[in-house]
Amino acid sequence: MTSFKVGILGATGAVGQKFIRILENHPWFKITALGASSRSAGKLYEEAANWIESTRMPDGVKSLTVLECTSNHFDEVDFVFSGLDSSVATEIETDFAKAGIPVISNAKNFRTDPTVPLLIPEVNPDHIEMIREQRFTADGSGWIVTNPNCVAVPLTTSLKPLYDAFGIESVVVTSMQAISGAGYPGVPSLDIMGNVIPFIGGEESKIRQEPLKLLGKLKDGAVRYADFPVQATATRVPVINGHLLSVTVSLKRKADQDEIINVMKSWGSPIHDLDLPSAPKFPLKIFDDPRYPQPRLHADSEGGMQTAIGRIRQAHVMDVSYIAMAHNTVRGAAGGAVLNAELLVKKGFLK
Amino acid sequence: MTSFKVGILGATGAVGQKFIRILENHPWFKITALGASSRSAGKLYEEAANWIESTRMPDGVKSLTVLECTSNHFDEVDFVFSGLDSSVATEIETDFAKAGIPVISNAKNFRTDPTVPLLIPEVNPDHIEMIREQRFTADGSGWIVTNPNCVAVPLTTSLKPLYDAFGIESVVVTSMQAISGAGYPGVPSLDIMGNVIPFIGGEESKIRQEPLKLLGKLKDGAVRYADFPVQATATRVPVINGHLLSVTVSLKRKADQDEIINVMKSWGSPIHDLDLPSAPKFPLKIFDDPRYPQPRLHADSEGGMQTAIGRIRQAHVMDVSYIAMAHNTVRGAAGGAVLNAELLVKKGFLK
Amino acid sequence: MTSFKVGILGATGAVGQKFIRILENHPWFKITALGASSRSAGKLYEEAANWIESTRMPDGVKSLTVLECTSNHFDEVDFVFSGLDSSVATEIETDFAKAGIPVISNAKNFRTDPTVPLLIPEVNPDHIEMIREQRFTADGSGWIVTNPNCVAVPLTTSLKPLYDAFGIESVVVTSMQAISGAGYPGVPSLDIMGNVIPFIGGEESKIRQEPLKLLGKLKDGAVRYADFPVQATATRVPVINGHLLSVTVSLKRKADQDEIINVMKSWGSPIHDLDLPSAPKFPLKIFDDPRYPQPRLHADSEGGMQTAIGRIRQAHVMDVSYIAMAHNTVRGAAGGAVLNAELLVKKGFLK
Amino acid sequence: MTSFKVGILGATGAVGQKFIRILENHPWFKITALGASSRSAGKLYEEAANWIESTRMPDGVKSLTVLECTSNHFDEVDFVFSGLDSSVATEIETDFAKAGIPVISNAKNFRTDPTVPLLIPEVNPDHIEMIREQRFTADGSGWIVTNPNCVAVPLTTSLKPLYDAFGIESVVVTSMQAISGAGYPGVPSLDIMGNVIPFIGGEESKIRQEPLKLLGKLKDGAVRYADFPVQATATRVPVINGHLLSVTVSLKRKADQDEIINVMKSWGSPIHDLDLPSAPKFPLKIFDDPRYPQPRLHADSEGGMQTAIGRIRQAHVMDVSYIAMAHNTVRGAAGGAVLNAELLVKKGFLK
Repeated sequence: MTSFKVGILGATGAVGQKFIRILENHPWFKITALGASSRSAGKLYEEAANWIESTRMPDGVKSLTVLECTSNHFDEVDFVFSGLDSSVATEIETDFAKAGIPVISNAKNFRTDPTVPLLIPEVNPDHIEMIREQRFTADGSGWIVTNPNCVAVPLTTSLKPLYDAFGIESVVVTSMQAISGAGYPGVPSLDIMGNVIPFIGGEESKIRQEPLKLLGKLKDGAVRYADFPVQATATRVPVINGHLLSVTVSLKRKADQDEIINVMKSWGSPIHDLDLPSAPKFPLKIFDDPRYPQPRLHADSEGGMQTAIGRIRQAHVMDVSYIAMAHNTVRGAAGGAVLNAELLVKKGFLK
Repeated sequence: MTSFKVGILGATGAVGQKFIRILENHPWFKITALGASSRSAGKLYEEAANWIESTRMPDGVKSLTVLECTSNHFDEVDFVFSGLDSSVATEIETDFAKAGIPVISNAKNFRTDPTVPLLIPEVNPDHIEMIREQRFTADGSGWIVTNPNCVAVPLTTSLKPLYDAFGIESVVVTSMQAISGAGYPGVPSLDIMGNVIPFIGGEESKIRQEPLKLLGKLKDGAVRYADFPVQATATRVPVINGHLLSVTVSLKRKADQDEIINVMKSWGSPIHDLDLPSAPKFPLKIFDDPRYPQPRLHADSEGGMQTAIGRIRQAHVMDVSYIAMAHNTVRGAAGGAVLNAELLVKKGFLK
Repeated sequence: MTSFKVGILGATGAVGQKFIRILENHPWFKITALGASSRSAGKLYEEAANWIESTRMPDGVKSLTVLECTSNHFDEVDFVFSGLDSSVATEIETDFAKAGIPVISNAKNFRTDPTVPLLIPEVNPDHIEMIREQRFTADGSGWIVTNPNCVAVPLTTSLKPLYDAFGIESVVVTSMQAISGAGYPGVPSLDIMGNVIPFIGGEESKIRQEPLKLLGKLKDGAVRYADFPVQATATRVPVINGHLLSVTVSLKRKADQDEIINVMKSWGSPIHDLDLPSAPKFPLKIFDDPRYPQPRLHADSEGGMQTAIGRIRQAHVMDVSYIAMAHNTVRGAAGGAVLNAELLVKKGFLK
Repeated sequence: MTSFKVGILGATGAVGQKFIRILENHPWFKITALGASSRSAGKLYEEAANWIESTRMPDGVKSLTVLECTSNHFDEVDFVFSGLDSSVATEIETDFAKAGIPVISNAKNFRTDPTVPLLIPEVNPDHIEMIREQRFTADGSGWIVTNPNCVAVPLTTSLKPLYDAFGIESVVVTSMQAISGAGYPGVPSLDIMGNVIPFIGGEESKIRQEPLKLLGKLKDGAVRYADFPVQATATRVPVINGHLLSVTVSLKRKADQDEIINVMKSWGSPIHDLDLPSAPKFPLKIFDDPRYPQPRLHADSEGGMQTAIGRIRQAHVMDVSYIAMAHNTVRGAAGGAVLNAELLVKKGFLK
């Protein structure tokens, strides 16, 4: 496999640091450029970043000089990962795409764009064809791919087998979200220690909308959204990593508990045989022990890339209830973007 | 008001200690007898109890000699509060009732008995008439009254205005429950620190069933249960006190958000004018700030006896979603039982 | 007792809010003016403050209009409490004192000033005479009194009986400090959840120096500092309120454990008979149970104004080791300042 | 390297599980026998153990049948690791040693035995010669080696360079210990959440005594203990893994801060060139950033086998203060025992 030179946009932030950590020993991708705000630009990365990951800062990035996030500084990379804040992502990502530099973005800005794939490789790998509709450059060399919100990832991944087998009428979900989802400094300790905050601004609309695009069908280069309502309540709990969801689903075709569990357990990932380096062997882990999954015990399973499911049971209202959990900053952010990039390599979009 | 001599059954346990703390300065009730297991019987209370409340052990109980929980040791009390474990409550509470000693119980054993009131004074005060159907004694002097599960209390209290105004079709609820609900030693810190446990054994069936009895209509001395399904997911979170619920309700008569909020805010407690010492001035507090209620900030409001509501909003699935929260060991346990006793005094059942 | 009109400087900050909460039902002091930065000035307090106390904002302050912190806006108050940030306290407090408005300050700026009393009423009440040395105004009407750092308070209060009875050679102390000590937003949850931070900037020099002024002797209007070295290590732990100290002391006159414990237990507060409203009945509580004191159980004792001591024992190095603990934002900040004001009233400095 | 068959005594407990996890992929040691109490004996390990490690139970042990802890059931192993409770360790470990089965024990029972090495390979590797003094068997085939208490490990490892370079007069230490040190179920969450417990029964005497044996000189097969007093205060804090110590030391030969830091940083491990599989590359990590080390960030460094040091500074009392931290159940328990076994292999005691 050819090695790719990659840049990280927003390299000093929480998501940017996670990209750097995840890519430290990546077999295909090598970080050669780091971009951040003008306040950091010009400094060595080890001076510019307040490193918050628990593993040491990789030696390979320490002495890279931080660049401003403009495409002209990144002409030697093959593509960039974007961990940019949404306040600046639209402008900067557009600049890179127009300059012919593919952008694999964790920002929310382009997720709803009709030509931009919102991608979970195990759920909708075919959506990458949408890239061909993008018009950032005349020759198609610059484009944008996004990964979903950190709750939408385990929610949609767990809904996918049910959607395919039974159809979905509606979903009610309550999330218990980890503090790392708010970045750094993020949630003040005085707010969350020994507490639950029953509201996360802007989160519930993403949970309601993103699964519908992810489960939509691609037709003539456009996604026909799935069509079912999602009622979401997003809460913050004193957990470091791992968003846990309590999900209740109404199915189009009724099924008993055994059939539902069987569908979940026997579900096969469409990218299983692609041997992507970051792909979990089992994208869905189904626990039989009702005490599981738990964020502190299971968020790191399979490198933080697995969605864990438990307590699948017939519901007294609607049809089926279960618990879903995934690592919010790996599977739900930087790790998901890296897996997207790996799929794009295999499919020939990156080369 | 005449003063009552009261006994506490299960006085060394977590619920028994909470009874002792709550009653320390009660204007009507004076603790004169403490019952516990034979292991503690014969010792002074201050030696028998591993006191876990954060306020000091009241002087009035320190030098009481702990008694065995048999009715013959309690012939001088007017009634007893029971914080007994369910493994022994059936036998002991029956013994006391048959001996003519009223039992105000927090145990679950008699909650589903067709002649035993399951009581929240603000919700179903008329159910105390069921006492007249009890046959523990020929003269009606011995009887049992119970209070509900700690999740059922805020759930049912918040459903009551909706049930009366619109009728209820179905309820989906996810609880985030405090560690104090598991007693002492209860939840190991290694299990819950920085974690969520998505299962509490035996809890969900109580959440499903108790609201139906509480909202039932009394007719000819028997309760006709309310009839709607409840789907519950009970989880444990790292919070000291205060169970928080994410509730979604389908209404029989449709209503818009303003009407629903108005019904919740204008609801009046049926016991408002009884001046019960432990009754909160506002049994339901409705927050407009979407960040509230929070267990650490609001569980102690109005002496821990208030149910706090927030985030009332039109739902995309079913009809309305909201957050409810109450102190699980006060409003949801010992404090609820004390309020029951106060109502029973006012209504002449205790004298 | 005449009622006093008081102003709060820094009223929207964490310390300012604590002043407002503590003074809500104060028998002598009534808040009539609130000062904050120009960003807040002109707004109603309920709009200007992000209220973080767990009890509701007192009605009495909600509709006060926030003023800028200049003395001309406060000409109707009898004195002010200052919860100002140290970056602005020197200038503003000087302005008020020069305008003839006494300042009872929690800020650190004037603590080391040779004419400004650093005051713990139970430790050095006579130091208030230093006020007469101050020259802010010609007639002595304007002056400043300060209270110590939140670790210095329990440390010095616990050292006082030992200092008087035996003399002190040296002290080694490790503090485990609550997150509320860092204000709001203060410590990010990602830094402190399930963690210890072994460093608090600027803290250790205050712990080393302030006890020496507090235990100093007043002579001719000036304090002769006590003279012993203190080695401090200040750490942050995941506790909401209550700083806990592990203290080891070398005494000038050697004593055995019984004598030391006896001195600690029999120590009497010099202000015991003044009946100050905020004074704890027992300024030092000595626990015999080695598990105590604990911040979560005991920080609120006696309204948060008590210093709790435990584990007094002969040491294998130096002479005696013990645990001390007090509520950092009450006893160690706003509550300490209020007690200072009460003493100043009794002694005729405020009238 | 020949492969060794090893048994685990106390295999279902917290320490036993940690042994199993650590040995999962060990290049030299293969678990072939598991011993536990008679209650578990006869069951498959996956049925007998309530697995609390966050990684999955290794397949290799799941279907091993748990044995009673008597030597006759373990005749096929080359040696055993003991994670036995101290209430049974004396009897069982003696039985194994007498049967000619070497015991590498984490239990405290034999730590003070004059013929049993108390061993930290980086500190006192030569002490293994004491094995030759043991008389459990006539031919010397059965013997016992122990590893120290979980606080004694980082304390002694950090004192070692100072002891060798300057000599030590005395030590004052306050530990902030993680909850995993109390085993499972261990510390109740109601006791420790948002709290500090300033006492751990039996801990301080081990902290005081074990470093003296570890730093002692071996002469004629016996250890001459180091001779300096240690004053310890052991506290429990809400941290999962990693004991953090605040240490102040009086040196025999005075030195300035630079010399002390230089001695710490330049210290070389005596087993550095033995290439033991579990030995950390850097047994002592010295941080310059005063915020470090922190248990949540650094306890897992180098597989949990590193002792991290920070805040080395001249002290105002005694001579030098610093922070030390190590993973209590890896470096301070099972991992330390495994490293002991590796040293014993290299030195020819196990073959």
